[in-house]
Amino acid sequence: MRILCSNDDGVHARGLESLEKIARALSDDVWVVAPQEEQSGAARALTLAHPLRFRQYDERRFSVSGTPSDAVVMGVTRIMGDKKPDLILSGVNNGQNLAEDVTVSGTIAAAFQGMSLGVPSIALSLSRLERHNARWETPEAHGAQIVRDLLKAGWPSDVVVNVNFPDCAPDDVAGVEVTRQGHRDAFQLFAEERQDLRGGTYYWYGHTGARSNPPEGTDLRAVYDGKISITPLHLALTHEDSFASLTKALMKS
Amino acid sequence: MRILCSNDDGVHARGLESLEKIARALSDDVWVVAPQEEQSGAARALTLAHPLRFRQYDERRFSVSGTPSDAVVMGVTRIMGDKKPDLILSGVNNGQNLAEDVTVSGTIAAAFQGMSLGVPSIALSLSRLERHNARWETPEAHGAQIVRDLLKAGWPSDVVVNVNFPDCAPDDVAGVEVTRQGHRDAFQLFAEERQDLRGGTYYWYGHTGARSNPPEGTDLRAVYDGKISITPLHLALTHEDSFASLTKALMKS
Repeated sequence: MRILCSNDDGVHARGLESLEKIARALSDDVWVVAPQEEQSGAARALTLAHPLRFRQYDERRFSVSGTPSDAVVMGVTRIMGDKKPDLILSGVNNGQNLAEDVTVSGTIAAAFQGMSLGVPSIALSLSRLERHNARWETPEAHGAQIVRDLLKAGWPSDVVVNVNFPDCAPDDVAGVEVTRQGHRDAFQLFAEERQDLRGGTYYWYGHTGARSNPPEGTDLRAVYDGKISITPLHLALTHEDSFASLTKALMKS
Repeated sequence: MRILCSNDDGVHARGLESLEKIARALSDDVWVVAPQEEQSGAARALTLAHPLRFRQYDERRFSVSGTPSDAVVMGVTRIMGDKKPDLILSGVNNGQNLAEDVTVSGTIAAAFQGMSLGVPSIALSLSRLERHNARWETPEAHGAQIVRDLLKAGWPSDVVVNVNFPDCAPDDVAGVEVTRQGHRDAFQLFAEERQDLRGGTYYWYGHTGARSNPPEGTDLRAVYDGKISITPLHLALTHEDSFASLTKALMKS
């Protein structure tokens, strides 16, 4: 089994080390093609207006001057050539990718890009609820078995699997739960105004939002409860109720 | 009604002129906050690792040094201050946003960002199937009425409306159809290798894919048939069938 590892925190990220450990527990044929720089919040962005370049570190390790999606496209269609991967793993992200975050996450975007190129793809993220250091030992302890179980179970070709590890020690993990994408009601993005040293004004994002009390069955709830959350995601965005109501309202006129 | 106009083609884009015409047909209180530079393919990217700045052109016209999502966040939370918009229009994009494109489009991302800030949001795009000049007169002729009809019909607060105008003259538009997001089976991204003038290698995206024969009821079919396509989209990505099958496979172990 040939595994391609990518991420959104960049080729030098600590989480990529954890991902490679997981991948090497599953296979001897592990490749890395990751963004040159951190790309958090890149979402599914593709670099359409600028040239892309890549850098080679060793026979199977590369970085790409673009987004997570760029790294996967370049990896699968160019760098790996006719050695198409059997599996793409993206992560391990330094921070959870839950609820609406999944639509902005570069980690999950890389998995979706792999999927759209016909390769089964899994995104892995590590919750860091408090500001202490990420507990990398938790995905390293449980990641390979989770991937093995997922490969055995299988999933459709238009779906990616979003895995989130809880912010606790490996032995404190309270189990595995298949979940639905939750809704982060208590989260609000804001832009803080700051002055640079030349007197210019710039803005820097932050977010408010205490930990909410998400319902049972959601990705948020599972991770808050110390479980490994597994959520199957796809990109069919049609809202069926509105399809029906707008059809009724607009098609008769 | 206060309307905020944004886009992904940038503040100087031709499509923004069409959007402003549509908005001014609906209201005298029209604001523009758009990206400084073209951001096609930006998806839902947010600029997290760099400072954001904005530029003011006149009382209600601004550009932001970031992505479409950045422009909307800065517009709603900073630039417009306590003058929160009642409606966000994003576009008119120079090119269709149909099928899987909706998950990469900056035009639609701006609408989703508006939605997530609590503002009803509509994305508008103009199909340009052939390589001739975009027919801006078509959204300009039909856009305001479409928006009026949509506002009258209403849609849920967790949904955006994706409007695509067909590549034909205004009088040749074959009607309006509420559609589902289609699937572009015949589309494949590739990266072409090129040499720069210093002998360095770079890559440039292209895509293959003839026009497919998409099924009735999809956004693709409607636009190919000369209709204005209206698709309600949301960001709940859970794949229900896989939720059930993975639950069965993983939760018993």
